[in-house]
Amino acid sequence: MTTADFPEWVRAHQLRVEEALDQLLPAPTLAPSRLHEAMRYAVLGGGKRMRPLLTFAAGELAQAKPERVAAAAAAVELIHAYSLVHDDLPCMDNDVLRRGKATCHIAYDEATALLVGDSLQSLAFQVLADPGLAADPSQQLQMVRTLAMAAGSRGMAGGQAIDLASTGRELSLPEVEFMHVHKTGAMVRAAVLIGAACGAALDPNAVSRLDRYAKFSGLAFQVVDDLLDVQADTATLGKTAGKDAAQNKPTYVSLLGVARARELAHELRAEALEALGPLGAGAQRLRELIDFIVVRTH
Amino acid sequence: MTTADFPEWVRAHQLRVEEALDQLLPAPTLAPSRLHEAMRYAVLGGGKRMRPLLTFAAGELAQAKPERVAAAAAAVELIHAYSLVHDDLPCMDNDVLRRGKATCHIAYDEATALLVGDSLQSLAFQVLADPGLAADPSQQLQMVRTLAMAAGSRGMAGGQAIDLASTGRELSLPEVEFMHVHKTGAMVRAAVLIGAACGAALDPNAVSRLDRYAKFSGLAFQVVDDLLDVQADTATLGKTAGKDAAQNKPTYVSLLGVARARELAHELRAEALEALGPLGAGAQRLRELIDFIVVRTH
Repeated sequence: MTTADFPEWVRAHQLRVEEALDQLLPAPTLAPSRLHEAMRYAVLGGGKRMRPLLTFAAGELAQAKPERVAAAAAAVELIHAYSLVHDDLPCMDNDVLRRGKATCHIAYDEATALLVGDSLQSLAFQVLADPGLAADPSQQLQMVRTLAMAAGSRGMAGGQAIDLASTGRELSLPEVEFMHVHKTGAMVRAAVLIGAACGAALDPNAVSRLDRYAKFSGLAFQVVDDLLDVQADTATLGKTAGKDAAQNKPTYVSLLGVARARELAHELRAEALEALGPLGAGAQRLRELIDFIVVRTH
Repeated sequence: MTTADFPEWVRAHQLRVEEALDQLLPAPTLAPSRLHEAMRYAVLGGGKRMRPLLTFAAGELAQAKPERVAAAAAAVELIHAYSLVHDDLPCMDNDVLRRGKATCHIAYDEATALLVGDSLQSLAFQVLADPGLAADPSQQLQMVRTLAMAAGSRGMAGGQAIDLASTGRELSLPEVEFMHVHKTGAMVRAAVLIGAACGAALDPNAVSRLDRYAKFSGLAFQVVDDLLDVQADTATLGKTAGKDAAQNKPTYVSLLGVARARELAHELRAEALEALGPLGAGAQRLRELIDFIVVRTH
C-alpha cells in the first residue's frame, strides 16, 4: 500500500510544519520572553505531527496550495500542543515526560504552563484567521468554526472531561468509543476537513467520505495508543508507559485484551481505507497515513 | 455627562449579553454535562459586563445591527470569563471568591476549571466565526484575528505572565503600565474595535480615535481596580479585597498613593473623552461608559 517515497513525504512535511510553527510562534526575544520561550519549548522539535500530516494529505486531495496548507496544519498542531501542555498538568494527568523531555510545567512552572496552553490556543485561531488561507473568506470562517468546535467542550476538551470522569470506573466499549470520538477523534477529523478546505471545493460525497476516513483513523490511532501504553517502554514512547493501568483508566486493551485490540486496529484501518474507496490517486497519502497510524512503535 | 436613560441602557444591555451567553453556552443536559454545567456556572449570572457594554456602545457608533453585536459581545465576554477561571486557579492567584460566589475550581474541581477555561476560549472563537456577524466575511476574519491577538501571549495572557513575574518585585510606573496595557488593555481595545467592526466601516481616523479611547479607558479601569482593592471590602467587591498588598503586587496605588492614583483615574477619563472628541452623538454611550468605569464601587 505504501509507495517508496512515502517516508520521504512524511519527513518533508514534518519539516514543513516545523518551519511554519517556528515562524508563527513569537520570538523569545519578544516580551514576555519567558512565556514565548516556554511556548516554543512546548511546540517545537518533537512529536509525530500526525494531525498536520493528515491536513497536508487532505490538502493534496483538494489540490490546495502548499503554503496555505502549512499554515492550516500549524494551526491544528497548535491546538494539539496546547492540549498536551494542559493534560500534563498536576491537576490532570500529572506527567513529567513528553516527547522525550520534561513536560512544560516541569521545565518551567505550573502557572507558565497554564498560560502557554492558553496562548497556544489563541495563536491557533489567529493563524487560521490570517487572510488567504482558503479560496474565499466564508470558507475560511467555516475552517475557524470547525477548529473551534473540534477543540471545545463538545470535542477534544469535552473528551478530556469524560476521560477524567471515567478514571477508576468501569466503562462499556461504546462508552470508551464515545470518549475517544471526542478526545482524539474530533481533532483528527478537523485536521482532515481543514486540510481539504484549503483547496478546491470537494463534492459533498467526497467530504462525507473524508469525514468517515478521519473517524476510523482517529479511533485506530487511539486503539494503537492504548496498545503501545501496555507494550512499549517509556524510552521508545517518549512519554510515561503503563500509565493507563497505573491510573486504572478504561482502555481498549483493558476492555478487549491485547489480541482483540490489535485485531480492532486492523479492522478500523480497513474501514478507513474503504471509506476513501473511489477517491483515486489524490487520496494516496491519506491511504498511506493510515499505516503510519496503525503500524508505529511510538 | 450621563443622560437620564443611561442606567436603563446599561441594564438592558447587561441583560442582552446574558441572554446571548445563555443561548450560546451548551445546555447542561448535553454530554459532558458536568463540564457544561461548570461553564455556565463560570459565565452566567454575574459580572459588570464592562467589556460587552463597550462592544455594544462601539456598535451603536457604527450603527451595527443589535443582534450581530450581541454575539460579538458574548464572544468577548467568553474570553474574559475564561481568563477569570484560569487566573483564580491555585497555581495562579489561588482565589476562592469571584463575583460573590465560590470560584469555579472550588465549586467543582481544578481539572474541571482548567477545562472550563479552555472550552470557553474555544467557544468564543466559534461564536465569533458564526456567519453574518459582520457586513462581509473578510471583515469578520479580521474580528477573529483581533480577538485572538488580544487574548494571546502578546495581549491578555502575556500580561498575566508579566504580572506573575512581577509579584514581589519593584516595578516602575512605565513597567506597571506595560503590564496593564497587556493584561486588561488588550481585551478592552478588542471589545471596542470588535463592536465597531460589526457595523458600517468607520473612517481610519475614527478607528484610531476609538483605539485611543479604549486604551485610556482600559488603564482608567485598572487604576480604579487598584484603588478598590485597597478601599472596598470583600462583600462589596464580590472578590477578595486587599489581595494586591497581601501578595506584594506592584499597583498604581502602591506606586503613587491613593490620592495621586485617584487623580490619575480622572486624568485618564479626560483623555478618553478627549479622544472621542468629534465623534458626535453616536459616541454618547462610549462617553457615558467611561464614568461607569471610573465612578464605581465594585
